[in-house]
Amino acid sequence: MTLPEIPDTMNYYISGIQEKNRRILSKAITLIESSLPEDQEAAGELLEALLPHTGNAVRLGITGVPGVGKSTFVEAFGMYLLGQGLSLAVLGVARKTREAMLICEAAGYDVIIVETVGVGQSETTVASMVDFFLVLMLAGAGDELQGIKKGVLELADAVAINKADQDNIKKAERARKEYENALHLLRPASPAWSPPVMTCSAVEADGIAQIWSVVTSHRKKMIASGEMETRRKKQAIDWMWSLVDEGLKYRFHKDRRVQKELPEITEDVNNGKMTPTFAANRLLFFLDNKR
Amino acid sequence: MTLPEIPDTMNYYISGIQEKNRRILSKAITLIESSLPEDQEAAGELLEALLPHTGNAVRLGITGVPGVGKSTFVEAFGMYLLGQGLSLAVLGVARKTREAMLICEAAGYDVIIVETVGVGQSETTVASMVDFFLVLMLAGAGDELQGIKKGVLELADAVAINKADQDNIKKAERARKEYENALHLLRPASPAWSPPVMTCSAVEADGIAQIWSVVTSHRKKMIASGEMETRRKKQAIDWMWSLVDEGLKYRFHKDRRVQKELPEITEDVNNGKMTPTFAANRLLFFLDNKR
Repeated sequence: MTLPEIPDTMNYYISGIQEKNRRILSKAITLIESSLPEDQEAAGELLEALLPHTGNAVRLGITGVPGVGKSTFVEAFGMYLLGQGLSLAVLGVARKTREAMLICEAAGYDVIIVETVGVGQSETTVASMVDFFLVLMLAGAGDELQGIKKGVLELADAVAINKADQDNIKKAERARKEYENALHLLRPASPAWSPPVMTCSAVEADGIAQIWSVVTSHRKKMIASGEMETRRKKQAIDWMWSLVDEGLKYRFHKDRRVQKELPEITEDVNNGKMTPTFAANRLLFFLDNKR
Repeated sequence: MTLPEIPDTMNYYISGIQEKNRRILSKAITLIESSLPEDQEAAGELLEALLPHTGNAVRLGITGVPGVGKSTFVEAFGMYLLGQGLSLAVLGVARKTREAMLICEAAGYDVIIVETVGVGQSETTVASMVDFFLVLMLAGAGDELQGIKKGVLELADAVAINKADQDNIKKAERARKEYENALHLLRPASPAWSPPVMTCSAVEADGIAQIWSVVTSHRKKMIASGEMETRRKKQAIDWMWSLVDEGLKYRFHKDRRVQKELPEITEDVNNGKMTPTFAANRLLFFLDNKR
């Protein structure tokens, strides 16, 4: 990361971001993702400076297994929003998505869509940083074949069965009812909101308006009940703690004796030669007794 | 915790545990739960010594919301197992449940039941340390009123609808079918096992034998497919990491500057005066720059 040769780098970023200058936006995102200590310091300063200009976008998380038509959906959804006179930024999940989201907010985007890559813990991470979490599903022959990960359905603020077009409409409607029943068995996250299940067709741009109207109606209810403010405050505190955790783990794994002994210790635990308690104490001992 | 005045404390514990001496078992559990450094050291040694004698019990986790009849169920289930000539130990979830489980295993109990208290993260914790996780449910008027926590249903290796007796039998059977449909929408954790949904009546000791036969059939399949060994190895490694995490957090919160500044920093993040990134960096800085 080479910083541009201008006298006040911070102002360069701040004014560029507020003018929605795409090149500077992308440079700013590169800066926050950089792991160089000097970049991290600058990124911290930049975020502090932008903070007063954040918080106004609709933060929307979208997930779905591969093959569900997520890209087509995001494209159709984005076209619809542009048609409504709204601006939007689309982010994929990376290590610094929250920070990238704040930068896009400061740039004045009305809607920020965060797409998950559909692997690992990304759904939980995205759900914990957005205002609304949309799960895209398919009407499958056997629904269990869809490979939806444990817990994902329970993070949903709404579910949309995609590819409800042509021969598939009846099957999609049947799947919609099934998921509706399944969601009723789960305790809703908010007393003011029961996640609806809808159908849509991204390729035919069908059902998109309805999904957006669900997002805005959810937003109105959450703001009115004060849950939006509570949710965002909680997200900020959760984020702080996840960064602290990340930092503690980084420090642990950076320790030279931990690095040296971890493979053998892990192997011993795996083979039942060492209890996990003993192994953990040994590893932590290295941190306290630096040589 | 005062250690008994005998020459070889460790042998006192080991032989007492292997003789299933209840007083010594309970002392050993007190020892592992003690936070005194000298007790922790002794507990570590004890667990190392017992390790070769562990791993043979059926580890069974049981959860259910208050009112589901969990105590009555565990009692009926225990009576049934005793009738089958099996010995069992029942543990509630505490800070050192895994260690207590190992001690009971070393004592030779055939079945160890870990009950969750039904609050916080206890279900996930228990599910991550047992071979089989049973979720007790009720047939309710509105099922969403049961207050089942997000994700709990997805941890289940089996679900049992309790209180399927007298006037309630039809309702329980209806609930059974509903949960069966809901579980079909989730991807099973193992290709060799789809979690069944059963009904039972703990007060009438009805359906208990069926539940035990499900547990044993699950066990046979998991052992045959090698998943039991994989699951237990994974649990040991997970346990090591959760202890490392716990230790890192303990060290963080023990830091005097963290303790002093955390309330104000948290307040600033909550009020939007400080970004979570800045706050986390500041807190971590205290650890690296001890005064």
